[in-house]
Amino acid sequence: MEVLAALNLGDFAQVFSKMGMFPVFDLAYYIVSILYLKYEPGSVEVSRRSPVASWLCAMLYCFGSYILADIMLGTSPLDYFQYNSHILLASAVWYLIFYCPLNLFYKCVAFLPVKLVLVALKEVVRTRKIAAGVHHAHHAYHHGVFIMVIVGYVKGSGVALISNFEQLLRGVWRPDTNEILNMSFPTKASLYGAILFTLQEAHWLPVSKSTLILIFTLFMATSKVVLTARHSHGSPFALIESWVCHLLFGSPLGGSEEEHQHPPAAVPSSPVKTREDVGEGTRKRKAKKAE
Amino acid sequence: MEVLAALNLGDFAQVFSKMGMFPVFDLAYYIVSILYLKYEPGSVEVSRRSPVASWLCAMLYCFGSYILADIMLGTSPLDYFQYNSHILLASAVWYLIFYCPLNLFYKCVAFLPVKLVLVALKEVVRTRKIAAGVHHAHHAYHHGVFIMVIVGYVKGSGVALISNFEQLLRGVWRPDTNEILNMSFPTKASLYGAILFTLQEAHWLPVSKSTLILIFTLFMATSKVVLTARHSHGSPFALIESWVCHLLFGSPLGGSEEEHQHPPAAVPSSPVKTREDVGEGTRKRKAKKAE
Amino acid sequence: MEVLAALNLGDFAQVFSKMGMFPVFDLAYYIVSILYLKYEPGSVEVSRRSPVASWLCAMLYCFGSYILADIMLGTSPLDYFQYNSHILLASAVWYLIFYCPLNLFYKCVAFLPVKLVLVALKEVVRTRKIAAGVHHAHHAYHHGVFIMVIVGYVKGSGVALISNFEQLLRGVWRPDTNEILNMSFPTKASLYGAILFTLQEAHWLPVSKSTLILIFTLFMATSKVVLTARHSHGSPFALIESWVCHLLFGSPLGGSEEEHQHPPAAVPSSPVKTREDVGEGTRKRKAKKAE
Repeated sequence: MEVLAALNLGDFAQVFSKMGMFPVFDLAYYIVSILYLKYEPGSVEVSRRSPVASWLCAMLYCFGSYILADIMLGTSPLDYFQYNSHILLASAVWYLIFYCPLNLFYKCVAFLPVKLVLVALKEVVRTRKIAAGVHHAHHAYHHGVFIMVIVGYVKGSGVALISNFEQLLRGVWRPDTNEILNMSFPTKASLYGAILFTLQEAHWLPVSKSTLILIFTLFMATSKVVLTARHSHGSPFALIESWVCHLLFGSPLGGSEEEHQHPPAAVPSSPVKTREDVGEGTRKRKAKKAE
Repeated sequence: MEVLAALNLGDFAQVFSKMGMFPVFDLAYYIVSILYLKYEPGSVEVSRRSPVASWLCAMLYCFGSYILADIMLGTSPLDYFQYNSHILLASAVWYLIFYCPLNLFYKCVAFLPVKLVLVALKEVVRTRKIAAGVHHAHHAYHHGVFIMVIVGYVKGSGVALISNFEQLLRGVWRPDTNEILNMSFPTKASLYGAILFTLQEAHWLPVSKSTLILIFTLFMATSKVVLTARHSHGSPFALIESWVCHLLFGSPLGGSEEEHQHPPAAVPSSPVKTREDVGEGTRKRKAKKAE
Repeated sequence: MEVLAALNLGDFAQVFSKMGMFPVFDLAYYIVSILYLKYEPGSVEVSRRSPVASWLCAMLYCFGSYILADIMLGTSPLDYFQYNSHILLASAVWYLIFYCPLNLFYKCVAFLPVKLVLVALKEVVRTRKIAAGVHHAHHAYHHGVFIMVIVGYVKGSGVALISNFEQLLRGVWRPDTNEILNMSFPTKASLYGAILFTLQEAHWLPVSKSTLILIFTLFMATSKVVLTARHSHGSPFALIESWVCHLLFGSPLGGSEEEHQHPPAAVPSSPVKTREDVGEGTRKRKAKKAE
């Protein structure tokens, strides 16, 4: 009967926005996150040399958004670590991805069709996190729209925002770039999502929260699946952004294309790609080489 | 009538110390702070490439003291961001300084006579912040004199203390120096001010808080105006400090002069100047070149 | 009478675990910690150039564990600074070690027999800190075993875990290594200790807390005294760890020996040793040279 009732879109959105994330969606989130960690150059060596450092990095990848949001709201950054089952599940995923005999688990989850499903599930979690972050901040600061946007943003972006320090934990230091200077698609989308959810929370957007969650989830899942399938690190926002930034901030038109021809002084000549945007092909090659 | 009563010095100090800072004084604070951000090499490129990073840096420049003090006292670092009007005002100043057509706003506020007035107003805010920081810490830790000094210090120094991380946000990393190793005049004055206000709060200084605020404001405003007008990065404390440090800590006499002849091993050969101490002339040239 | 009753081991453990740490044991802790700071290359120059930076580093060495644990549990990182007598004692030790005429104090406490006693006393404090950290975290998160382990760990390791940032304060930046990547013996022991105390707190270890404190203190004090006396930077865990890591994480057998022959890519060719593990001989030479 519940399924029948859900045929109505409003009700479906309602049911969808109340659906529990643990364990299926969270599991997908952990798998994809730790997969991205394994793609990082040097992470496999670190997992051999110092399992503690590797585990900490994996936890940052899985729970970085909670840690950051807790810091932003002034509560204990370890608060989420009280959920032992979540930590154990993420630790199990970390162990299987890095130390499974014959690299079997990694090969399964990195197999493109499987990965596309996991990526789509991860975006469901991301959207819910943004909405929860905005709601949480709204609870603490009733009129603090800037706080709502920032907390929603860090909840959506997670470890990407502290990637410099996560890399430092693995002995890598790349100060010439960071996720704010060169935003990847998920980070940008988290920012826009946080703004949308804040507008909704402040009743400036004439749409219910469950509908917004449904629409934003569909947009994110579709975009990320298409980008992952095409090994692309583009962004659906590129064209609009390029024009808006040109009008508002005097940025040169043409964005990324031009950037490659005339790299700004602060960007080094070595092509440092942002975390989630490196083409899948390159990543796999790197990860294989590292084994 | 209030003006007449204020002719008495004690009453005038009282009135002065109760005077609201928003919006006039705060506006001056934001303008001077973001002006210093624009003087930083590379900040104009960052404002073109990544407006989000530029805005975040501007917020750190304007509200770094609140963020740091909130962290020190264990509350939400975003706490001050609940005051939407302050954030909007600072954001407007950031937009005008970086993106105003023909660079008109920048040229107006960087015009020396205007700037000297703004610099003086900024020091009024700085003194009030130190006093408020010490008072706030005293409220939380009644006998914690060290906490009072530290919180007052970070309230007065603001972004300077985290300049390494603020630079990192813009893709710049200069680990060989920091504001604690090479304190500029405002940072030092904030430290001494925090000590004075702590002594006053602990009733070890026989002077009322409002009088101390008035005297310290006059000292800070005069010093900064003179230093800014003379494009100097000296410090009125240099002579006393040199002798005290020589007696207490065995530092070589003559301080900065000698330092330039025999630079210590940790300091690189390139002359890395601290933020607020770079001569105005150099700064303007740099900023102009960057446009 | 109390002494007679203490002849019973259980009672002795009870009395030992209730013994006050201030001022004798804490003093030893401060002396050994600031001694290690003086061994750091460049720290003597910093103490001459910027006493404030040097004092801050000394405070991080003495109170880093409290600061970190407070951050982890979301309270004010300055919380411990309310104990003025502790701060004054540590500051006095800092002053004597760095600025005492003829370097007299340093020579006394760095004299091996004296130092061995101080090192043993320091380990008494460390064990108590781990136990207190686990207990504190247990109080805040009743079932958060991961939180208990992490808080106990940071309470035992202290400044070592933030050594990169402590070095940055002194103008030194060594991103290619950190205490998590290359754990020294005290850091590892703190981790294992935190796990043991957490198991005890969760009633999974059939031993009373006072007995565990006694046994762990004896183990730590003996190990550190032997290691310090032999100028060794080995670890009593090396053999077991090597096998466990080989079985669980596929790490190459033979650990450190092999590592020196085939250094992993991330480790630089310059031998960067971790803080507490550098042989005493090398340290003294460095410290002498720096004077």
